[in-house]
Amino acid sequence: MIEAPYILFLGDAVDPLAAKVAQGIRDWRPDYAKAQFRLPGCNADMGLPDMTMEEAVAAGIKTVVIGVANRGGHISDAWIEALESALVAGMDIASGLHNLLSDEGALVAASQMHGRTLHDVRIPTVAYPIANGKKRTGKRVLAVGTDCSVGKMYTAIAMEREMHARGLKATFRATGQTGILITGGGVPLDAVIADFMAGAVEYLTPNNDADHWDIIEGQGSLFHASYSGVTMALIHGGQPDALILAHEPTRTHMRGLPDYTLPSLEQLREVALTMAHVVNPDCYVAGISINTAKLSEAEAEAYLAELEAKHGLPCVDPFRQGAGRLVDALK
Amino acid sequence: MIEAPYILFLGDAVDPLAAKVAQGIRDWRPDYAKAQFRLPGCNADMGLPDMTMEEAVAAGIKTVVIGVANRGGHISDAWIEALESALVAGMDIASGLHNLLSDEGALVAASQMHGRTLHDVRIPTVAYPIANGKKRTGKRVLAVGTDCSVGKMYTAIAMEREMHARGLKATFRATGQTGILITGGGVPLDAVIADFMAGAVEYLTPNNDADHWDIIEGQGSLFHASYSGVTMALIHGGQPDALILAHEPTRTHMRGLPDYTLPSLEQLREVALTMAHVVNPDCYVAGISINTAKLSEAEAEAYLAELEAKHGLPCVDPFRQGAGRLVDALK
Repeated sequence: MIEAPYILFLGDAVDPLAAKVAQGIRDWRPDYAKAQFRLPGCNADMGLPDMTMEEAVAAGIKTVVIGVANRGGHISDAWIEALESALVAGMDIASGLHNLLSDEGALVAASQMHGRTLHDVRIPTVAYPIANGKKRTGKRVLAVGTDCSVGKMYTAIAMEREMHARGLKATFRATGQTGILITGGGVPLDAVIADFMAGAVEYLTPNNDADHWDIIEGQGSLFHASYSGVTMALIHGGQPDALILAHEPTRTHMRGLPDYTLPSLEQLREVALTMAHVVNPDCYVAGISINTAKLSEAEAEAYLAELEAKHGLPCVDPFRQGAGRLVDALK
Repeated sequence: MIEAPYILFLGDAVDPLAAKVAQGIRDWRPDYAKAQFRLPGCNADMGLPDMTMEEAVAAGIKTVVIGVANRGGHISDAWIEALESALVAGMDIASGLHNLLSDEGALVAASQMHGRTLHDVRIPTVAYPIANGKKRTGKRVLAVGTDCSVGKMYTAIAMEREMHARGLKATFRATGQTGILITGGGVPLDAVIADFMAGAVEYLTPNNDADHWDIIEGQGSLFHASYSGVTMALIHGGQPDALILAHEPTRTHMRGLPDYTLPSLEQLREVALTMAHVVNPDCYVAGISINTAKLSEAEAEAYLAELEAKHGLPCVDPFRQGAGRLVDALK
């Protein structure tokens, strides 16, 4: 686990989009996001107090989280001096970038000298077991998508917020780098070795109180030729009690695969439920989460109403409308 | 690629079953299997000339293949002296065991001193790409099973033999350790990192002549909670033109999962074809391969006849009957 609270490292972000990891933490874990650190030329701003590394330590901050990605997802040379000073001052560093903190000699040396930890959340640090398929106590819900990047993480984390607001027991279980940085823990599933994928998901979602919900972050899509195996492992390792179907209605082809069209929601429902029933015969589809960011308010409302009439399930954009109706649909 | 021909290292095998990798090479690549090496107490015999390591080198043999697995799949201390002498004599060593040759200090030192190669086929040595889903030239067939260990590898390699006997262009593409040792190359798919599984299968089955068949070794099962993600990646990375359904009729539960029953062949067909159609809309089920080892000849014949009438597809035990009718069914 990454120790909170955080100072969000925005570096020399070229624009706000480059700092989307920081924005995710700011939005979803405001209690963790205490300060920001910006280099000259930074074009992102989380609206948090700007602090030096020394000021952050004095304010009780434990970890610098790299909240920015430059082109290529690399650790920039321009960042090293500031990051090194964070270790010297007494903080850990966490990063989800492709280049590893642990491959940066200066940071490794400083972390060892000052007894600090470098968290590279892109790679697993646990020897996950092979899945045993045993039924676990507690409830689990998983979002499965018609494609990658259709809003599965957003849906899950919005459902967690809604459930906490209602005083329900719920835990967002991160399976990707951004989710891990936002919540401080999880499994970087796309970097797990094939034989242990489903076991890693079992590890992430252990026995729990009967009325506790794990809200598992989805990955990929059963219909995405590059990543479908990861999605399959989430379904079989997660043993979901409920599925949320996730879709982006303006997508013209599968992400990164120009020759592939998206499946229909019916096709997704059929295959995902069939596979979920292997590990949990009672699994049901609770609702449909639609990312309507590219539709106007009127278009979104019309689309959601039409979809809801067609499928007989709550059809919701959790960003526009909140996740309340999806939570209502959990049994 | 592992250099042939081989001397099969049988070590101190407690019984013939412990030497099943050696038996597989002996059966399927008799041209590679030139000699065997046995330690005192060895209870396996491939019927090959027993040679010392020096005699093997003199006979033109290039590689010692560890053809034995002791309990736990480890490299035994009792083997080290003989294996070291093989490196000194001028041969490489190949192993599919869990413990790596490259973790045995004496073997590493000897291989470096004598310029030899240690092949640990359990771990990937290639940085596989992320799958791009692009259509490739040539044909591909994949066996998918109702469970793990129902005869998928045997089916594939028997089909390759039959196709070669007919003068057809065909290549068995190994995706597991035994298959890699038998054929000298392949992808150890269960050890590939999640994001690159489907890409590794694309890498293994590249563009080829229009009339060439890749016969891809299956792994796991779409219905096996521990390994279904690996199977999914084989289907989406392999883009099969044809599927063979594989089944073992006396299996009472999924291998290693006592609480799980096997799917029906209809269920397997439905899900596997649906998923294959994502990457290849023309994919069809060519036939059904049944492992009848636990049935009598009469029981097997009756079972296969009943199944064939029910499914309208060739239903064959390639061990008892050869793979001819499965090959006939490829379009």
